[in-house]
Amino acid sequence: MTINVKNFLKNKPKLSKMGEFQELQPIEGLEISAISADLYGTGRDDLCLFYFKDGANYAAVYTSNSICSESITWNRQIRKKFIKALLVNTKNANTFTGTQGKEALENLSKNLAKNLTLREAQKEEGTSQVIKPNEILFASTGVIGEKFPTQRIKSNTPQLVEKLREKQNKFIWFKAASSIMTTDTRPKLAYEECRIWNKDIRLSAIAKGSGMISPNMATMLAFVFTDADIPSIFLKSLLKRAMTNTFNAITVDSDTSTNDMVAIFSSNKVKTGKIYNVLDPRLKDFEMALQRLLLNLAKQIVSDGEGAKKFITVKVINARSQQMAKNIAFSIANSPLFKTAMAGEDPNWGRIIMAIGKTSEAINTSKLSVKFGSLSVTQNGSVAECYSEKQVAQYMKNKEIVLSVDLGLGEKSATVWTCDLTKNYVSINADYRS
Amino acid sequence: MTINVKNFLKNKPKLSKMGEFQELQPIEGLEISAISADLYGTGRDDLCLFYFKDGANYAAVYTSNSICSESITWNRQIRKKFIKALLVNTKNANTFTGTQGKEALENLSKNLAKNLTLREAQKEEGTSQVIKPNEILFASTGVIGEKFPTQRIKSNTPQLVEKLREKQNKFIWFKAASSIMTTDTRPKLAYEECRIWNKDIRLSAIAKGSGMISPNMATMLAFVFTDADIPSIFLKSLLKRAMTNTFNAITVDSDTSTNDMVAIFSSNKVKTGKIYNVLDPRLKDFEMALQRLLLNLAKQIVSDGEGAKKFITVKVINARSQQMAKNIAFSIANSPLFKTAMAGEDPNWGRIIMAIGKTSEAINTSKLSVKFGSLSVTQNGSVAECYSEKQVAQYMKNKEIVLSVDLGLGEKSATVWTCDLTKNYVSINADYRS
Repeated sequence: MTINVKNFLKNKPKLSKMGEFQELQPIEGLEISAISADLYGTGRDDLCLFYFKDGANYAAVYTSNSICSESITWNRQIRKKFIKALLVNTKNANTFTGTQGKEALENLSKNLAKNLTLREAQKEEGTSQVIKPNEILFASTGVIGEKFPTQRIKSNTPQLVEKLREKQNKFIWFKAASSIMTTDTRPKLAYEECRIWNKDIRLSAIAKGSGMISPNMATMLAFVFTDADIPSIFLKSLLKRAMTNTFNAITVDSDTSTNDMVAIFSSNKVKTGKIYNVLDPRLKDFEMALQRLLLNLAKQIVSDGEGAKKFITVKVINARSQQMAKNIAFSIANSPLFKTAMAGEDPNWGRIIMAIGKTSEAINTSKLSVKFGSLSVTQNGSVAECYSEKQVAQYMKNKEIVLSVDLGLGEKSATVWTCDLTKNYVSINADYRS
Repeated sequence: MTINVKNFLKNKPKLSKMGEFQELQPIEGLEISAISADLYGTGRDDLCLFYFKDGANYAAVYTSNSICSESITWNRQIRKKFIKALLVNTKNANTFTGTQGKEALENLSKNLAKNLTLREAQKEEGTSQVIKPNEILFASTGVIGEKFPTQRIKSNTPQLVEKLREKQNKFIWFKAASSIMTTDTRPKLAYEECRIWNKDIRLSAIAKGSGMISPNMATMLAFVFTDADIPSIFLKSLLKRAMTNTFNAITVDSDTSTNDMVAIFSSNKVKTGKIYNVLDPRLKDFEMALQRLLLNLAKQIVSDGEGAKKFITVKVINARSQQMAKNIAFSIANSPLFKTAMAGEDPNWGRIIMAIGKTSEAINTSKLSVKFGSLSVTQNGSVAECYSEKQVAQYMKNKEIVLSVDLGLGEKSATVWTCDLTKNYVSINADYRS
């Protein structure tokens, strides 16, 4: 499904000539390389390295799944607020790999640190820039439970380091975003600009994910890079707040990955003066840009949902609380019967009623109104007087569907984004490994 | 998918000559008729009437969905513990039909009561058996939100009453079970016998359901008829207890219908002496028979799950509590990624790990063992040493899959039954109404 990215961008859309993708701008202090270690046996890129020569502040949020990747366990035990590199691999999740997976990261981090230190030494004689293993983060995505391909990654590390380039044009961003894909049909990229104090700030970001997507955690990989100079502790607050109505408001299939990670890195190259407080008004514009950026990526993930043919917005308004609105919106967005009806372009709104009712929220059917787009479906506990099945059926043919549920109980609302459940979702997931 | 019903029956299987179906025995005091009111426009049977001339004790449990059918609302407001009839219709759920649906039942109950009273008057002159509207229960299944076809049902009521027959052979049970089907591919019937005191007791039951099946309520229609003489209050306790590990331990798609109803009716024709207590040892054999009967029907529903090609048993053992075991079992059984892997006969056990982890239960991966049938998959937090992907892949080709998860934390366990998620599920539900 091709969704017009322009629609997602209320602000300064910068579409590259490569089609619908935004053109990402270079982030000073960041170097990128992406190569193939042939983990798939097809020659596609599968390793991606992000390197900050002068280090970066960062913050990350991880999956809520109680079983998680060794990569996430590794990152969690790093107490540093300042890191040097992020290595991402696809094909293998490094989850449920036991001691082998854990030792792999100890091994790889030492090896990568050594290679990066060597490079620094060669580049600038006289300096003694040393990269330590605990300044490296990992992210993995792919099949769970398979032996982690340590040796193959290790033997490709020198090449990965050698190909690091400070110059970031749209092609390297595209290559990086492509190298972290699994069942994604296209890379996900987003770009925003903002001002902190009187300085121009850039945010360039990539993401991957199209299945195992459910809220209350990252639910995929997403990496945001900015040249701003923001302490890690504030990055964490800003990231967490921005998650609520972006990555934590999407669902493809209600399954939560063991590997989800959303991280933001600031290379501190644009000096904006010391920030003492996360509520500092100077951060306002940055926070809004971050929010737009994550929403943009979140929507790209949903619209590339496995097998998806439709992009569905579920709005629940006039609830007693935001949580109530979100619970009901997710109950609809996760209902296989609702999602298959959408795939069949069938205005079978009874399934929406079922999904609203199956939560434990107390609702009042006589106040319940449901609309597709601007077309009323129900009012006062039964079908709307002006309901025209033909009109709604016509509306269902759209690629982008907006469903609004008015609970008539309060003033809170929530919006959730999802996609339809198609035969293709089943095909993709029944045959994923073969 | 055809599941050998014999496997489900550890006790006295009585298979009829019609194939794999058990041969149901007549229940004294019950009369049945099933006809077509042509609600589907295809001439198929769609109305079914169960009539107890001398009344019946009964108990029922209904959907936990907060939005429910007008039929269920009607039944809930009946305070009587002794009823005369149950009318079941398919095609229309009578849900979200507002005043129209509510008035339909007032109208139909009066009409049916009148017709039944008239029949009694004609049959036995001199007696004055009067059936009242509030001695009639309703059950509906079908599409939500469509206008209830009151007039069509009403005009067929005389014929429905006229065709009531006390004689119940296997064909009438088969016809009754077929008349309540929607997307089911075959009727569901079950039979048990037991003894209360020194009397032989029969339990004949029918059910329907193959989508919108999720636990914590009936999740379909099921009606059990017995000739025992058990007070309604004890029927209620017995039914609720029997639900836990039968109908409340199955899932097809995690969606919960607005119309679910499981009811048991005892015609009191076999006098077993007064029972004062639900713990009366005389009820033990009956309770076990009821449990087997419901489990048999529950399994038939799962094995006829929409689009299902595999019948999957998920056992979680050595949990800290039964609830913990059940939560984890359902998390696996409801995971679209697990279910699609089963459809693809892919031993992608990483998705089982994901589904175990996505609950909020605290587990210890190093104690976690997963088996398909008798084949070990994981041990001590990583893949089992003896794991053979080839062997497990071979096992996945079976129609009946048993997955065991040993948490190694305690002594409690739970079993849940489900089916795979196939392209056919999507086809059925994308095109259900068209």
